[in-house]
Amino acid sequence: MPTAAAALERELLAQIPLARAMALRVVAHAGESLTLAAPLAPNINDKGCAFGGSLASLMTLAGWGVLRLAVAGRDLDCDIYVQDSTIRYLAPVWGELRCQARPATGESCAAFLDTLAARGKARLRVECTVPLPDGGEAATLSARFVALRTDAAAA
Amino acid sequence: MPTAAAALERELLAQIPLARAMALRVVAHAGESLTLAAPLAPNINDKGCAFGGSLASLMTLAGWGVLRLAVAGRDLDCDIYVQDSTIRYLAPVWGELRCQARPATGESCAAFLDTLAARGKARLRVECTVPLPDGGEAATLSARFVALRTDAAAA
Repeated sequence: MPTAAAALERELLAQIPLARAMALRVVAHAGESLTLAAPLAPNINDKGCAFGGSLASLMTLAGWGVLRLAVAGRDLDCDIYVQDSTIRYLAPVWGELRCQARPATGESCAAFLDTLAARGKARLRVECTVPLPDGGEAATLSARFVALRTDAAAA
Repeated sequence: MPTAAAALERELLAQIPLARAMALRVVAHAGESLTLAAPLAPNINDKGCAFGGSLASLMTLAGWGVLRLAVAGRDLDCDIYVQDSTIRYLAPVWGELRCQARPATGESCAAFLDTLAARGKARLRVECTVPLPDGGEAATLSARFVALRTDAAAA
């Protein structure tokens, strides 16, 4: 796994206790796409499938991670917040929780970084899906994130 | 705390490991309204405030609980699923996480129960807010849930 993705996993597990409780893993980071996963056992619900809150948390963290990896290695210290999200739960997940996030259609990390560098604040809409084994979708998230520079250059 | 609310807390903590990890509590159940809470420490994020996934999980469970308490004590065994949700994160939460859920405007548990009894399946939209100490809102959720009867009478 690339260094930045491994660092993201360490950061999430170190700083977010719920990510540890979920046993979250960073699976892949390719281009502007990020894949996270978590085992079913710590994320199960009363019906024996994945808890909706775990799916919401995993997809929200995947979206957050897309921005986090975009700024990684650049001279752009910032805090990243989720502003809103819409989630559709389409089918139960009976095994490992896995989701893939990327910038929404028409958005890009490059434009987000340009704005963040120029204005000290930038937004990015991210889409995330939880695939089903047969190729369909178990859940989708569309969420908007904002990054606020915290380094001296932003003052 | 009323017996049904105490039973709900036991059920959530027993059947959903993430609710245990969050140290979730049922605070109040009055009429069709349900209040849940969780301490900040297990639900903190990289910025020192409440993790968005914890807020999403707490609000989703509060909405789920509104339906669960509506069917409690009635001869209506059912599974309850979240179908969709829209969350707005309006301000950071720097202390205890607390949210209050109730049926959305124009919806009621009575109509939901009538439909569930008659058809074996019913939906209810729930609204949930995370209040700020000053009276504003730190986050809101609007979510739709579906209940499916599992008892013999529904066959």
